[in-house]
Amino acid sequence: MASDSLARKRRGILFIISGPSGVGKTTLIKRLLRSYPDITLSVSHTTRARRPREVPGNDYHFVTVKQFTALRARGGFAEWANVHGALYGTPRAPVERTLRRGRDALLEIDVQGTRKIKRRYPDAVSIFIAPPSWPELRRRLARRGTDGRKTMAKRLENARREIRESMRYDYRIVNSDLGRTVDSTRAIVAAERLRVSRLRTRRSK
Amino acid sequence: MASDSLARKRRGILFIISGPSGVGKTTLIKRLLRSYPDITLSVSHTTRARRPREVPGNDYHFVTVKQFTALRARGGFAEWANVHGALYGTPRAPVERTLRRGRDALLEIDVQGTRKIKRRYPDAVSIFIAPPSWPELRRRLARRGTDGRKTMAKRLENARREIRESMRYDYRIVNSDLGRTVDSTRAIVAAERLRVSRLRTRRSK
Repeated sequence: MASDSLARKRRGILFIISGPSGVGKTTLIKRLLRSYPDITLSVSHTTRARRPREVPGNDYHFVTVKQFTALRARGGFAEWANVHGALYGTPRAPVERTLRRGRDALLEIDVQGTRKIKRRYPDAVSIFIAPPSWPELRRRLARRGTDGRKTMAKRLENARREIRESMRYDYRIVNSDLGRTVDSTRAIVAAERLRVSRLRTRRSK
Repeated sequence: MASDSLARKRRGILFIISGPSGVGKTTLIKRLLRSYPDITLSVSHTTRARRPREVPGNDYHFVTVKQFTALRARGGFAEWANVHGALYGTPRAPVERTLRRGRDALLEIDVQGTRKIKRRYPDAVSIFIAPPSWPELRRRLARRGTDGRKTMAKRLENARREIRESMRYDYRIVNSDLGRTVDSTRAIVAAERLRVSRLRTRRSK
């Protein structure tokens, strides 16, 4: 039947998850990928120092500024940015390979990165995770305890700007309860996979 | 916080479920409404004869042709159609009242009705339930046993045309397993409620 053969031809979807530091993105993504092991999480390149528990190639590809700028010069990043003084970038090749194979990819990037990705991949699905309240976000950042006071003030300032920009996203989830936020994100993935507009033609890239 | 007050101002969403007779829409809708008791199911008017187990005002408002055409003349239907020789119509007033209150409404209508509704309410979310295969659809129609052979042939012909038209819908679910189809429909409802575009302004109607 035609509908079945079309369903098999679904294009890969590029999902984007953003939200202020400390909102719970990392845990959310871990749990989302447990439900959807067929989604490929993009691993960013960064020039910032590795934190104690981070695994190279898993959390980030840790590179030198020289390595980063060389890849950037070759057009190797789908988006890149200078955040809190360090360079971060989403490598293009693995993401585009994933989508070409008809599989979904997931990026965890900030508001500016999302704007750049949406320009390059207009079909990308952007999801903003918002904190339930300001005091709660401040508490979560303090509990993490990895940042100095000045960095924390900067993160809070960025968070305010990001939340204002969240109205440009496709979806927004207020993370009052992580279990519910995971369910909501799962629902977005499931629903987007059923969109008729994604069945019509294979992504030509 | 601004994002919370905006979340409360979400507009009511108009969901549409379509699919060929016998595909399992009625059971699906019953189970969907059990998970989402806050969705108001629109009850259509019809001039066709009541079937044994149907409850007036619940399954349909059973009306005479005279009553139907009088309401239609006053612009009282959001859409109406002549299907298999009987008149069917979606009364406008209750649907628009539901949406104005910021609550979601659900219509079970056919392909032509969906086209008319989408013209009048462009934000409506249309979901097409497709049969897993032709032999399966024929089996289901035969099992129901309420139709004569001629009506069944007509229903099958309509089903073919409807499935071709399913590519105009926002979402399409192939109903291979009812439990999974219910989950998929639930995911669509949950995801659509998180769309930022629905938070911006209150529906002005």
